[in-house]
Amino acid sequence: MYFRDLLVNAEVNGIVVPQGLIAHGRGEAFDYILGEKTVPAAEKATRAAAAFLLTAQHPIISVNGNTVALVGKEIVRLASTIPAQIEVNLFHRTSRRERRIENYLARFGARNVLGVGSAASARVPDISSPRAKVDPEGIARADVVLVPLEDGDRAEALRGLGKQIIAIDLNPLSRTSRTASVTIVDNVVRAVPHLITISKRMKKLSNNELEQIKAKFNNQRNLATTIKEMVQYLKGWAVD
Amino acid sequence: MYFRDLLVNAEVNGIVVPQGLIAHGRGEAFDYILGEKTVPAAEKATRAAAAFLLTAQHPIISVNGNTVALVGKEIVRLASTIPAQIEVNLFHRTSRRERRIENYLARFGARNVLGVGSAASARVPDISSPRAKVDPEGIARADVVLVPLEDGDRAEALRGLGKQIIAIDLNPLSRTSRTASVTIVDNVVRAVPHLITISKRMKKLSNNELEQIKAKFNNQRNLATTIKEMVQYLKGWAVD
Repeated sequence: MYFRDLLVNAEVNGIVVPQGLIAHGRGEAFDYILGEKTVPAAEKATRAAAAFLLTAQHPIISVNGNTVALVGKEIVRLASTIPAQIEVNLFHRTSRRERRIENYLARFGARNVLGVGSAASARVPDISSPRAKVDPEGIARADVVLVPLEDGDRAEALRGLGKQIIAIDLNPLSRTSRTASVTIVDNVVRAVPHLITISKRMKKLSNNELEQIKAKFNNQRNLATTIKEMVQYLKGWAVD
Repeated sequence: MYFRDLLVNAEVNGIVVPQGLIAHGRGEAFDYILGEKTVPAAEKATRAAAAFLLTAQHPIISVNGNTVALVGKEIVRLASTIPAQIEVNLFHRTSRRERRIENYLARFGARNVLGVGSAASARVPDISSPRAKVDPEGIARADVVLVPLEDGDRAEALRGLGKQIIAIDLNPLSRTSRTASVTIVDNVVRAVPHLITISKRMKKLSNNELEQIKAKFNNQRNLATTIKEMVQYLKGWAVD
């Protein structure tokens, strides 16, 4: 309920668009049949995500209105932990919204947020939406992109450019989830704080150990495990 | 996508509240794992719903912003088919929104919409939200209430008053779904037109036949069947 109010306020403040509220509702439903908890498969994905981020040459955290409204502060902390840069990338793009998001993140200490206004001068091919616009210093040259609350088209296009995509998406059936290198099927409000903790801990590991974690992770298998968790949850309700 | 735009516009026009958009998103997710179709259990529930409505002494169709935005026209048609009266009942109640909904329904020929402004002078006990306010000519004296897109508190309170509740809710696990006498687990944009067709057809049945349909219907069993449909759908995706 608290997070619902956060989003409703963020819509009033022009950070979140109405479509973002609908998307949040979809997430809520999937979270519900996940038991509103971090399942073991999400735990595993979070470790793999940390390994990808910590071994990246140029990791970028892509944010939209919903992400910033829900976990703006934590995104800034995650960026300084890895370290990674933050880029604003909106489906419903207006420079006014970009500035508002930039200012909102600045409150938590974010400096040099990428992708704002004319800074998004590069283009990702094969996307028709304004999400195609990216920062040459950011997503355009990134090797690993963390994309919480993503749309499927962009996830596919970025994968097509050979980038590793880490998604946070409560729908394990979505195109984003199935396209990503690592999908954390968890609520962003649990997943991002958790990713910070895990990343801090895994910084102590050697490059070799991190590479092993990456190599061992199988996203399709992990998604299948998550879906089975949802099936178990639903079955518990199918009693007449 | 078309219905998503309808709702976003309805929010701009003050018919739908931001919380309604989030609720719609939850519905979308459940519809997704239902395969976005009317399952046999929903078909069965629709027949039972029609039987309850057609045998009612004083049937009322309760509407909120989302219902009106998505199927306003169809609600008016259903009301004249049964016949039943329409009552506005909002969780986020303002007289401005009530009037807008009344005017919107009037476009489709609705006259004498109940529950608007001071007309909602009766109270349903045990509800703290503004939804407690009901029309003495409507929900207060109804024996059967159709509540598309309901909240659980009110469904329970109305059941407590001995009324038969027919819910249209995509979440078969919700309190509304489990409290109602009949729950149609289907998208309201499919369910309401379907209910009109079925009601027209069932008008030819005798009272005895309608009573038999009511008596044979078991809502808990029907919900369990629906959940099993969702389980089957999800299982089809759990492949590594």
